Amino acid sequence: MDIGIYMKTRAALVNSALPRFINNLKGSQPRLAEAMAYSLAAGGKRLRPVLMGASYEIFGGKARDILPAACALEMVHTYSLVHDDLPAMDDDDLRRGRPTSHKVYGEALAILAGDALLTDAFTVLLSSKYPKRVKPEGLLAAARALAARAGAGGMVSGQAADLEAEGFLKGKAGAARREKGLALLSYIHLHKTADLITAAVEMGALLAGAPERDAKALSVFGRDIGLCFQVADDILDVVGDKKKLGKSGSDARNNKLTYASLLGVEEAKRRAEALLRRALPGLARVRGAAGPKAALAAIAEFVYRREN
Amino acid sequence: MDIGIYMKTRAALVNSALPRFINNLKGSQPRLAEAMAYSLAAGGKRLRPVLMGASYEIFGGKARDILPAACALEMVHTYSLVHDDLPAMDDDDLRRGRPTSHKVYGEALAILAGDALLTDAFTVLLSSKYPKRVKPEGLLAAARALAARAGAGGMVSGQAADLEAEGFLKGKAGAARREKGLALLSYIHLHKTADLITAAVEMGALLAGAPERDAKALSVFGRDIGLCFQVADDILDVVGDKKKLGKSGSDARNNKLTYASLLGVEEAKRRAEALLRRALPGLARVRGAAGPKAALAAIAEFVYRREN
Repeated sequence: MDIGIYMKTRAALVNSALPRFINNLKGSQPRLAEAMAYSLAAGGKRLRPVLMGASYEIFGGKARDILPAACALEMVHTYSLVHDDLPAMDDDDLRRGRPTSHKVYGEALAILAGDALLTDAFTVLLSSKYPKRVKPEGLLAAARALAARAGAGGMVSGQAADLEAEGFLKGKAGAARREKGLALLSYIHLHKTADLITAAVEMGALLAGAPERDAKALSVFGRDIGLCFQVADDILDVVGDKKKLGKSGSDARNNKLTYASLLGVEEAKRRAEALLRRALPGLARVRGAAGPKAALAAIAEFVYRREN
Repeated sequence: MDIGIYMKTRAALVNSALPRFINNLKGSQPRLAEAMAYSLAAGGKRLRPVLMGASYEIFGGKARDILPAACALEMVHTYSLVHDDLPAMDDDDLRRGRPTSHKVYGEALAILAGDALLTDAFTVLLSSKYPKRVKPEGLLAAARALAARAGAGGMVSGQAADLEAEGFLKGKAGAARREKGLALLSYIHLHKTADLITAAVEMGALLAGAPERDAKALSVFGRDIGLCFQVADDILDVVGDKKKLGKSGSDARNNKLTYASLLGVEEAKRRAEALLRRALPGLARVRGAAGPKAALAAIAEFVYRREN
């Protein structure tokens, strides 16, 4: 399997479905709908929807069955980027090589576009038609997982802790600072990034009605590759090619707490590798189709090795 | 029935349940949880949860059955106020007589607290236990209604249109402006305010598994009292006692488009009354318990006559 081609093919499905879901939201104020579509169209790897599809397919369905759920998760991810880029937050001008939402639409409409993407993730998730294979209980469980992983018990708390950590590196160096920094960082990474990647594989399993044991194993796998993804991101923010990344490296500029800034790039690389090594055995124990499991393993490798 | 006492008693139920739901969101970043609780504790009439409870009781249950859903709707309403008050939006310093969230916690955390209140409205709605009377299909339908009424097909578009209307009154006066203003205003009122009040009575009916005909009639009733509520709000912003309102009358200050500014206070009062007269007959035709129907009618009267 060429995982690059696999991911591009799967992402293309998501890219063609997203604008349809936005157009279906009848009665939208036109400029708001435009701002929502603008941020969704910025592209990216569509990692979360692709993960959800592969996780779902382990238990026998086709990724296409759950396209609304996959798009809903991408909408939640996109809202979080729009709000994260705001002047009051990271104050970023570029995202994926294009001006950020508030640069194009103004701050007020960018806030509202984020709010609408978040809310209508639930509209898309809950109001779409699914094949019979997806049961109402599975849909309810997936919606529960999405809300819990994205809310104050999850992603938003990661963002809040990230604010708290700003300027952390300006304090005095030393072993105590290093310990406190590592604890704060692992909380931030777990919630800011890993929770939504966990939701991706979790929702796939829940929508498929997977046995609880397998859903849990996938959830742990999701957490580990989510953490690996964020450590890799920290490293790329320091050593990555800004053109490939399509963003301006604001973490380093803002003197942000990252694994790279706290431990150095080499130690951060070792941590990312350890997370990958920990993730794969758990995935191997999940009972189901071998093809989608191999795809998930290859995506995990990709997450570790990626250059953007 | 003394509707004042009824509303206070019902609101007290909501006030005591809301902090419990926030505390249940395990793992929240402490300052974020504090900001969420701060805005939820600001009080207010809890109109939407009270309406939901009364609507549900028409079909035989007790309002207490659906307290998580009622609190979820109040969380959505509260998030919308937190974001609406932001410097990039209405830039309000006071809300219900207290400093607004961004004045206390800063802009970034206020944005995140709003995001978390919105997301966790779905956590609370979907992850709570309900008595058997509330069926999974009813819960799914209620969650669908909440997302649709709060999203880009609903409330957020009302906010976006409200931004669009800013400075409208600075343009040249005349019949064409009046026509355009009225069209814009009715869109704003329908979505910014009426949609969430509609969701309140709609969700009550859906959670109760009400017959479709009755759920629809209640939805129309909700829309009309929601519109009436907003016209009354426009009037109060001009003539109301600022101390009773607990806010600083930013609409007039910002030269905002309102019924009062466009048509004058007297004509606005006539519109509010017409909406009330239109709402009541539809409610009377709903089949179910007389007590809760009388409560809804009395709340409609209250909405029309309120002084804050």
